[in-house]
Amino acid sequence: MSTAISPLAPASVPDMPAVAGVRLATAAAGIRYRDRTDVLLAVLDEGSTVAGVFTRSKCPSAPVEWCRVKLKRGRARALVVNSGNANAFTGRTGKQATTLTASIAARAIGCKPDDIFLASTGVIGEPLDATKFDGVLGTLARTATPDGWMAAAKAIMTTDTFPKVATATVKLGNTKVTISGMAKGAGMIAPDMATMLAFLFTDAPIAAGALQSLLKNGVADTFNAVTIDGDTSTSDTLLAFATGAAKDAPKISRAGDPRLKAFTKAFNAVLADLAEQVARDGEGARKLVEIIVEGATTKASARRIAMSVANSPLVKTAIAGEDANWGRVVMAVGKAGEPADRDKLSISFNGIRVASKGARDPSYDEAEVSAAMKNPTIQIRIALGLGKGRDRVLTCDLTKEYVAINGDYRS
Amino acid sequence: MSTAISPLAPASVPDMPAVAGVRLATAAAGIRYRDRTDVLLAVLDEGSTVAGVFTRSKCPSAPVEWCRVKLKRGRARALVVNSGNANAFTGRTGKQATTLTASIAARAIGCKPDDIFLASTGVIGEPLDATKFDGVLGTLARTATPDGWMAAAKAIMTTDTFPKVATATVKLGNTKVTISGMAKGAGMIAPDMATMLAFLFTDAPIAAGALQSLLKNGVADTFNAVTIDGDTSTSDTLLAFATGAAKDAPKISRAGDPRLKAFTKAFNAVLADLAEQVARDGEGARKLVEIIVEGATTKASARRIAMSVANSPLVKTAIAGEDANWGRVVMAVGKAGEPADRDKLSISFNGIRVASKGARDPSYDEAEVSAAMKNPTIQIRIALGLGKGRDRVLTCDLTKEYVAINGDYRS
Repeated sequence: MSTAISPLAPASVPDMPAVAGVRLATAAAGIRYRDRTDVLLAVLDEGSTVAGVFTRSKCPSAPVEWCRVKLKRGRARALVVNSGNANAFTGRTGKQATTLTASIAARAIGCKPDDIFLASTGVIGEPLDATKFDGVLGTLARTATPDGWMAAAKAIMTTDTFPKVATATVKLGNTKVTISGMAKGAGMIAPDMATMLAFLFTDAPIAAGALQSLLKNGVADTFNAVTIDGDTSTSDTLLAFATGAAKDAPKISRAGDPRLKAFTKAFNAVLADLAEQVARDGEGARKLVEIIVEGATTKASARRIAMSVANSPLVKTAIAGEDANWGRVVMAVGKAGEPADRDKLSISFNGIRVASKGARDPSYDEAEVSAAMKNPTIQIRIALGLGKGRDRVLTCDLTKEYVAINGDYRS
Repeated sequence: MSTAISPLAPASVPDMPAVAGVRLATAAAGIRYRDRTDVLLAVLDEGSTVAGVFTRSKCPSAPVEWCRVKLKRGRARALVVNSGNANAFTGRTGKQATTLTASIAARAIGCKPDDIFLASTGVIGEPLDATKFDGVLGTLARTATPDGWMAAAKAIMTTDTFPKVATATVKLGNTKVTISGMAKGAGMIAPDMATMLAFLFTDAPIAAGALQSLLKNGVADTFNAVTIDGDTSTSDTLLAFATGAAKDAPKISRAGDPRLKAFTKAFNAVLADLAEQVARDGEGARKLVEIIVEGATTKASARRIAMSVANSPLVKTAIAGEDANWGRVVMAVGKAGEPADRDKLSISFNGIRVASKGARDPSYDEAEVSAAMKNPTIQIRIALGLGKGRDRVLTCDLTKEYVAINGDYRS
């Protein structure tokens, strides 16, 4: 399998500042991989709150089920993430593994197992040997430090080709607070909530209910608007933690608090940044594809049409071939099952209109369009001419490398 | 690009008998291809009836719109099919092209344009120059003969790697009647998409309404249970014609007529045969994949789960890699949005149970499963353990060749 970094990786990586109340540590526990880290422990100050969104899969992983239950309490002291094994479809032993992991972590930190949040990513169906965390988590709890964000983002990678981090600093009241996050993506990614694994941390004092609203709203146009292959994972988990260590900042109890305006904007920007990085690291991706649908009857209708285009293998392979094949875009609009009028439809690629009012655009110039398709970023704009519904979805192309990666992964 | 015949092509081709009341002829009209036939004319005896089902795309081709209108009359005298150009998303000129084609054909045969049925397959968005049919159709009408079924099936191919025909002979009353059909699916020349066309012909005297019911029922578990890539064409067309030339057979006016029992079975078998051939010639296909879902709450639920598995890029690439990756099957079941209980789920590949009751099967033997995955035909059986709903879907694997066919080609 190629380990080359995606050509769509961001040109620069931000300096990741400490987030007060958060300490990180990683280790190589030998879950599956050799010669790399595969466990992350994030230790949170007492009083930290937590919010989360998860896969809508009917066959969720054991850690997803664990988190769903614990989330109701709204409190967290640590996050344990392992890569290499998803602990999904592992039956009763999977549940036992989550319980054991949480109690090992709780002992290491000195808290209740209920305060531990868990996420696992990797192979489905293999039993996870949680005894491997024994000892390891104790060491990590002692050595955790406020920096090490890049190391943390690396420890949670599977087929990702680059670690994904994002950060923002913003004023809450008169106090500067930080929002930092990391994500892993690659394959089995389709929006049905949050995508794969992503974790946000802030030192702002935000109550669990307010944080949950913030997260739920923020995810709709970020992680839920990204698709790699239309395949929703069993393990998708997005957790946000607020330590409240920024003591001078106003305590926020509801998402609608007007003092939260700048914070919400920064929070959403971090989500959007991480979500885009997931699209940029789609398995085998060589093009980042932005699909904008406008003039739909509603935003929800625009979303469904954009997703139909974004998940079409024929559209995605055409982009891999640098072919502005708008006929396939018409096909994907047509199959979405949403209101569309062929004779009002206009389509452009990277700003060049190729089709208008149900036929090839009169000004269509093959050479001009072909040149534009060489760009690593492709924007497909679809104007339906029916209403004011508009939406945007990010995806990537479908290349032979995607097939190679997924024809070889596992055994 | 390779023009090799699919390794999944049927080992033998049936002898195609004449169907009384049907005459066929083909020609090279130079629509797009060089050195091959691209027009089929099927001439039908007076009194022939017709039934049809079409794409549900909101952006259908001009010939689909033509057929939908004419179908209401229930009568047909000829079918004109061209390959190389789908006459889809061609605006007003597309509509004009259908009108012109039908009037050229009607003049050649001596009937009304309303009695002409049309289908086009190939590139989307290119204007179809229907004047190319002038002269050609007149010659074809004069030279059409009762044989030439293979030539007909070849003339409608685009990226297909083999012509697809099927036939059955059955008694209706005491009279032997014939049902013969042809289809085109996906292949490898220069199509913009896998446009599916299929045509059935019988000499049985069946009223249009009865034929329509027969077709609608028959298509549900045959053509509608096949998926190559989840991309619904703008042009999908399946037409059935009954000439009634088997004069001694009882005239059938309704699909529920008990005398139609054997005929219905044979009719459905021809549909199933052609549909399977479409799956066997999926672009880049190296494996024919049958997905059986049982124990679902309803048949419709079983269908949706089977389709979720059949359209999952991760399941399809795993099969291309000869990997019995049941974790991805779990994922695809989970994302279908249908009732499923992870802890009741069992999965087998080619009869070997790999997962049962929500975890890896205790008897799982990697070597045994790996050997079974080398088979060109893969059956995935998914038992949900919830109810009596059962369904079956055919698809093929997703290979690098699929990406090459659809990405390397430039319109």
